[in-house]
Amino acid sequence: MCLVNGETQDHLPIQDRGLHYGDGLFETMAVAGSKVRFLDKHFERLEWGCARLGIVAPGRDVLRSEIASLSGAAGKAVIKLIVTRGASKRGYRPDPMSEPTRILTVHPWPEYPQRCYEGIDARICETRSGINPALAGVKHLNRLEQVLATREWSGERVREGIMRDVNGRVVGGTMSNVFMCCTGELVTPQITECGVRGVMRGVVIELARRRGIVVSERRVELEDMLQGDEIFFTNTLIGIWPAVRIDNEKFAVGPMTRALMQDLASLGVAACAGRA
Amino acid sequence: MCLVNGETQDHLPIQDRGLHYGDGLFETMAVAGSKVRFLDKHFERLEWGCARLGIVAPGRDVLRSEIASLSGAAGKAVIKLIVTRGASKRGYRPDPMSEPTRILTVHPWPEYPQRCYEGIDARICETRSGINPALAGVKHLNRLEQVLATREWSGERVREGIMRDVNGRVVGGTMSNVFMCCTGELVTPQITECGVRGVMRGVVIELARRRGIVVSERRVELEDMLQGDEIFFTNTLIGIWPAVRIDNEKFAVGPMTRALMQDLASLGVAACAGRA
Repeated sequence: MCLVNGETQDHLPIQDRGLHYGDGLFETMAVAGSKVRFLDKHFERLEWGCARLGIVAPGRDVLRSEIASLSGAAGKAVIKLIVTRGASKRGYRPDPMSEPTRILTVHPWPEYPQRCYEGIDARICETRSGINPALAGVKHLNRLEQVLATREWSGERVREGIMRDVNGRVVGGTMSNVFMCCTGELVTPQITECGVRGVMRGVVIELARRRGIVVSERRVELEDMLQGDEIFFTNTLIGIWPAVRIDNEKFAVGPMTRALMQDLASLGVAACAGRA
Repeated sequence: MCLVNGETQDHLPIQDRGLHYGDGLFETMAVAGSKVRFLDKHFERLEWGCARLGIVAPGRDVLRSEIASLSGAAGKAVIKLIVTRGASKRGYRPDPMSEPTRILTVHPWPEYPQRCYEGIDARICETRSGINPALAGVKHLNRLEQVLATREWSGERVREGIMRDVNGRVVGGTMSNVFMCCTGELVTPQITECGVRGVMRGVVIELARRRGIVVSERRVELEDMLQGDEIFFTNTLIGIWPAVRIDNEKFAVGPMTRALMQDLASLGVAACAGRA
């Protein structure tokens, strides 16, 4: 099921700048009980990203109504929203008359195995993230780095890869943000030079602060991360996945990770497989 | 006129990874006298880029035949080829069973004004290019940086913008490569950290070396470029455009630029407006 600018349609005009230049953004949203979780936070990030790229964000009312028409029957599912700058003639310069394109698609809920919530194996990727403050944080459509990073391994044993920037600092997972707990403090890489401003990242930071935990967004060197007491990954669909292994380093699922997983569960976010 | 995997079609399935992640590459080709100029060089770059991204390149014979069917009637035109990794389920990791998508479109020849060949005004862009050796040189679909750079100015007076990388070094124009002549040597930024391996860049390097000119591909600081004796831009469609002004710095169209423009003209590449 797919809506393009409100019309049921499974294709896109070839002229769309989303295809030609990755000139757009996306949101991946969790539908549970026919409702999108953290919908306003997704809208906020989308609008912030659109402003950064100079794309007119679709109105919330239009999106709410289109999302409702897709999620109503879905129960538990994933809705992906893509907003592009629309169609234009050939050439990088946008046509100021272009109308943005909005694309909504529904996808089956990924039934992650229970063991992901008990702790996953992750790896350090060779593929780096380029540094560009102009794009940092934005969930834009230029995702070749993530694609290449996920091609570095196959199989189900390793569930996530950690990406570093070209200077060697930790950026996050290929499809997630990463947190480490370090002597009572919660640390996550800053997203001022690269990385994505994850919605679940924001939720977890809020939850931690409500618990009185000091949260620090800063540059994280790989060796510092690997010396952390606990490490976990976040994204909208998975909630929190603790890391029990990163390459050959082993980690325990510690009390801070467990507490934040409980907080998320109380918001209705899966802390174990099968829970909405 | 548009061919998608050989079929006349003006749209693309929503699931295509070219849209979702910019997971693909493109070539912009000049058609003159119903033939694509430097077609083998475009094929070489495409195949090199596909290998870098792990995408199976379309066969040359298929492409030749499809391009011929589009260019035959075109006379003087632009043909754009996009190759994506094809459709897949949601998620960065490619589906090894995906079949790449090839898209060919024909566009009107851009009739650049004569004065562009006498020298253009250019500007230094604020938008930077991120550094990523894994993607450097490849003409991939992740082009948000170029899009944002071209949004920095409007109007026809300024014809090109010079982009720097995040460390301040010169990368090239938004839609071109850049060369400077410096005491008899021809210098162009190396493309090992960012930038595009332009087909016309390669042609001009070859032509210069045939003339016995020393060509150096290296890191270029902005201030060094601005102290060059001559500066010019290259791409497949424009050939060579000399710079006569970059922001407030003025430049002359010098003998090395003129000689290389003549060499290009002898290969049939426009050295002035209206010439094929």
